[in-house]
Amino acid sequence: MLCIRKGNRAAILSAVLERIKMRTIEWVNGKVKLIDQTLLPGKLKHVYVTTVPQMIDAIKTMKVRGAPAIGVAAAFGCVLGSDNLNETARKLIASRPTAVNLKWGVERMLRVGSRAKGQGSRRLKALLLEEALKLAEEDVQTNKLIGFYGNKLIKKGMNILTVCNAGALATVDYGTALGVIRAAHEAGKKIHVYPAETRPRLQGAKLTAWELKQGKIPFTLITDNMIAYHMQQGKIDIVVTGADRIARNGDTANKIGTYSAAVLAKVHGIPFYIAAPFSTIDLKTKTGKDIVIEERDPAEVTNIGRERIAPTNIKVANPAFDVTPAKYITGIITEKGILKPNKIS
Amino acid sequence: MLCIRKGNRAAILSAVLERIKMRTIEWVNGKVKLIDQTLLPGKLKHVYVTTVPQMIDAIKTMKVRGAPAIGVAAAFGCVLGSDNLNETARKLIASRPTAVNLKWGVERMLRVGSRAKGQGSRRLKALLLEEALKLAEEDVQTNKLIGFYGNKLIKKGMNILTVCNAGALATVDYGTALGVIRAAHEAGKKIHVYPAETRPRLQGAKLTAWELKQGKIPFTLITDNMIAYHMQQGKIDIVVTGADRIARNGDTANKIGTYSAAVLAKVHGIPFYIAAPFSTIDLKTKTGKDIVIEERDPAEVTNIGRERIAPTNIKVANPAFDVTPAKYITGIITEKGILKPNKIS
Repeated sequence: MLCIRKGNRAAILSAVLERIKMRTIEWVNGKVKLIDQTLLPGKLKHVYVTTVPQMIDAIKTMKVRGAPAIGVAAAFGCVLGSDNLNETARKLIASRPTAVNLKWGVERMLRVGSRAKGQGSRRLKALLLEEALKLAEEDVQTNKLIGFYGNKLIKKGMNILTVCNAGALATVDYGTALGVIRAAHEAGKKIHVYPAETRPRLQGAKLTAWELKQGKIPFTLITDNMIAYHMQQGKIDIVVTGADRIARNGDTANKIGTYSAAVLAKVHGIPFYIAAPFSTIDLKTKTGKDIVIEERDPAEVTNIGRERIAPTNIKVANPAFDVTPAKYITGIITEKGILKPNKIS
Repeated sequence: MLCIRKGNRAAILSAVLERIKMRTIEWVNGKVKLIDQTLLPGKLKHVYVTTVPQMIDAIKTMKVRGAPAIGVAAAFGCVLGSDNLNETARKLIASRPTAVNLKWGVERMLRVGSRAKGQGSRRLKALLLEEALKLAEEDVQTNKLIGFYGNKLIKKGMNILTVCNAGALATVDYGTALGVIRAAHEAGKKIHVYPAETRPRLQGAKLTAWELKQGKIPFTLITDNMIAYHMQQGKIDIVVTGADRIARNGDTANKIGTYSAAVLAKVHGIPFYIAAPFSTIDLKTKTGKDIVIEERDPAEVTNIGRERIAPTNIKVANPAFDVTPAKYITGIITEKGILKPNKIS
């Protein structure tokens, strides 16, 4: 029997829990294990992805979503499709156009592929897996650092607005914008969060609210059109969101509604921060105008689960992202510190 | 057999159709006939209201909604409860706090009640019914005039944003903001409308989209957090919404999200108009600060029909309205012409 001194038990238990902690995406016995995010908050279920088409489907249907998480998903996808790496890479990059992390993850894998040329397919796969696991591990560390730097912006008792989900579910673990919130909460700052529900896919209501509840971080769920009202009432002190792509000039693509929140923050004199890893910065994209905005299925707007909420046969817009010009962004919280959006390159 | 000259047939048919046209609310054989708006767009069904508690329930649960429509509903409610008019009036006014038309409709009925003192209960009921029918008729005419004046603001090919539903369904017929849109469409101006879906109750997606489709007016449905994006893209030329109460200084309460749209319009240099009857102006309310904002059931946010879209046991905000300060309002389109919001009293 292993005897543990009483004082150590909590520390050891905490370490064990940390090890077995659920990750949004991980490699388990030759398969990619994902939390199926389309089923939350009603059901916490994992799916196992074993082929490239399955991974592309998981990305397109948003079983896995969030810029950093799909970067890692694509890297694991390259491992699954290592026999035909270039073709796999092309298909994965094409699966969603806006988040640059997807391309970034795949390109890291392609570089490993180049270096491994002529070393045989088993060796290639092993090297790709090594890189993908490293990338996943880095993501968690990156988020912890984003949390560390972002926490400095959060004062005791602050009310924080966030849109969409830039949490553990949008990354491998911990989160970017929600990582900042988590860090402030862990520091005992008695913060309160307003997650905006984020139509049409409701990532705020379904995922962020779920993560906040799990983390016992106080929050009040609001609909997107309540943001301005709460700002007007002095109920929001700071806005922190994630990002899907940051252009060289600081213009930032993120979930639809982010631009709206940024403009409203400016008008109400509220600081607006982006929290994102360096991999979200795309120096090849000069300005926001060069970012392709994904247009998604109209059914995401007209149907919520089994409910049809609009007449049939109508025209619907469904841009999945918008671009917030750099002038609306107070700062970008990265793993290397907080950048001014006009000081990226 | 009645012989009609060929040229007249269309005119007569149109007049007949006009007469039998469906109204949102009307008095039929001693009952109040309402379109049950909670079932649209899936089902067009009428309910018959015969008692005051039924009418209060219909108003509270939004079977009938929209400031002018609930004004008329309350007036008919006074007819149903004429035996105990003061008590009826008090209960009806308390059913929803923000829209002043409710109070205004009831107060008109109370004045009739005062004049009819000592004339017997049957006579009182007849006089009240006469007044309620007059009020309903006036509402349609008022909306036509709002349409007439508002149409002058609409240029050929304009893209118009509207929030919530200020259409035939929010009134007895024709609509206020949607009356303006209808008038411009009838004038052949080839307009295009963006109805914002308007969470949480989705009146834009469910009711405005339905009315626009019925009226063959071209439109594209958007979610509330897509408004700023469409403005940024130059896709919106003017905003027209309804109102639930206009204070003496021009501050205007309307459906939650209206303030957001107004601020965003200002930032993008887009004119923002309120369309509302004079009965929505409340000279007793000095400024927007004096307007009570109704807080509704959190379940409206967390549940959409049979779908639960958020975790259970969480805190939710659900203010049904917000107040747009006069400085964001370009003009108020009324049945007497277009007012500057700072020139009301």
